[in-house]
Amino acid sequence: MTTKRIVLIGAGNVAHHLAPALLNAGLNLCQIYSRSIESARELGRKTGISYTADLFAVYPDCDIYIFCVSDDSLLSVFKGLRVNKNALILHTSGSVPLSVFEAYVENYGVLYPLQTFSKKRVLNFREVPLCIEASNENSRTLLLAMAEQLSGQVREISSDKRGKLHLAAVFANNFTNHLYGIAGKMLEEEGLDFSLLRPLIFETAHKVMLLSPEEAQTGPARRNDESILGKHKGLLKNDKKLLTLYSLLSDSIKESLVKNETKSVAEDPQMTLTLW
Amino acid sequence: MTTKRIVLIGAGNVAHHLAPALLNAGLNLCQIYSRSIESARELGRKTGISYTADLFAVYPDCDIYIFCVSDDSLLSVFKGLRVNKNALILHTSGSVPLSVFEAYVENYGVLYPLQTFSKKRVLNFREVPLCIEASNENSRTLLLAMAEQLSGQVREISSDKRGKLHLAAVFANNFTNHLYGIAGKMLEEEGLDFSLLRPLIFETAHKVMLLSPEEAQTGPARRNDESILGKHKGLLKNDKKLLTLYSLLSDSIKESLVKNETKSVAEDPQMTLTLW
Repeated sequence: MTTKRIVLIGAGNVAHHLAPALLNAGLNLCQIYSRSIESARELGRKTGISYTADLFAVYPDCDIYIFCVSDDSLLSVFKGLRVNKNALILHTSGSVPLSVFEAYVENYGVLYPLQTFSKKRVLNFREVPLCIEASNENSRTLLLAMAEQLSGQVREISSDKRGKLHLAAVFANNFTNHLYGIAGKMLEEEGLDFSLLRPLIFETAHKVMLLSPEEAQTGPARRNDESILGKHKGLLKNDKKLLTLYSLLSDSIKESLVKNETKSVAEDPQMTLTLW
Repeated sequence: MTTKRIVLIGAGNVAHHLAPALLNAGLNLCQIYSRSIESARELGRKTGISYTADLFAVYPDCDIYIFCVSDDSLLSVFKGLRVNKNALILHTSGSVPLSVFEAYVENYGVLYPLQTFSKKRVLNFREVPLCIEASNENSRTLLLAMAEQLSGQVREISSDKRGKLHLAAVFANNFTNHLYGIAGKMLEEEGLDFSLLRPLIFETAHKVMLLSPEEAQTGPARRNDESILGKHKGLLKNDKKLLTLYSLLSDSIKESLVKNETKSVAEDPQMTLTLW
């Protein structure tokens, strides 16, 4: 595995985490390509790996090409590339099916890291869940070997399941982060700083590292506290969209409790002590 | 301050964190009351403080009475209590106004910890933001002194602002946790375990410990990726409520970008690398 020559196509958020991860795993990353020379140079210098912004300068004789480019540009960049026909071609997208390469090569697959990446943040890549899928047994063997050197969390997941996983990730990450933003704006309007919410946000995430979200759920909807729900809807009466969002989420919490037949708060009056 | 005799009324989630915090701060917690003798005993034994489930057995001659009971039972429990008229009466609720005690005593206030508490979780109370409000200068001085011994994050916040803060906390905690649950159910339906999302949830919260939610926002709505938004809506077409929630939150993300005039993704094609 460590003898296989790897080229990284793309130099954005994912590549900025994947490139160092490949090197730390002792894998043979040989070259980085980005359509933007600035991005290519930034990652090339950060990793000490040769870089280019010229598709024709990409080494044609390597063993593995990992595409970390946008879903939209994936095929056009791939088609512009001249690579040996036995190479393993991988993409890293949550929502592009494995079959995207079917018409063009024999050996292809998907290496989807289930994480949110920013250049600014440092992550332990060993803990990033990697969802893999391959076109044939040879590709699978090679991809699995590489993935397991990169992370301790490797799962084989079909394109269909990966699509659902990506959707779930949008709820767990994009939408969650947006709720932080909505809460932050409410504080802003009161002249209060977002930082006041940080310990709460931190604890909210840490709770579900051990508990299930159902066990961790608290608040007025959780305990059917209609008087507080009413007060809150009153505070939102001038913002129809937020009011709709509040009602939709509160009702959804109530319904999920019924579904989960969670222990009724009525049996545990002190549960209502939890401040929401 | 350390000579002031304190009684805790309630033995639920908040009291289970506040009692040890009072003792760790060197404050003089003398007694714990709960309407449930089991809850009173549990917290009494945990802290080594005398406890009772008999309102008439609550010490009438102490200096500070902190109510950690449900909003609904606050007044009835308070009215059942015989305390000296100079005592400082405090409640810990996010949504009950300061004025709740106005008709009954001179010295009263609010000690609202902006955090989600569970008996199972251990917290560093020094980092819990405490929002305080008092009926007069004497009460304010005493409450402030106590609060600052408990936490390094003490703010004076009016009842109105506290109400909005509580609403914001519902978005940042209750609703966020529920989104974790929705995402978990999606994985469950695919035979995948919730734990697969934990690194993502962890990183999502940790990102906003430094960045603002606007800076941390990623995903198809963030980058106006209509093709993925369309795919996701297709996956949700049989669940009207989730589809509505998905559209509402995605549209809200798009709008907030316009409002914040956040740097357009078009200027930074690599942004789309972030997997959602």
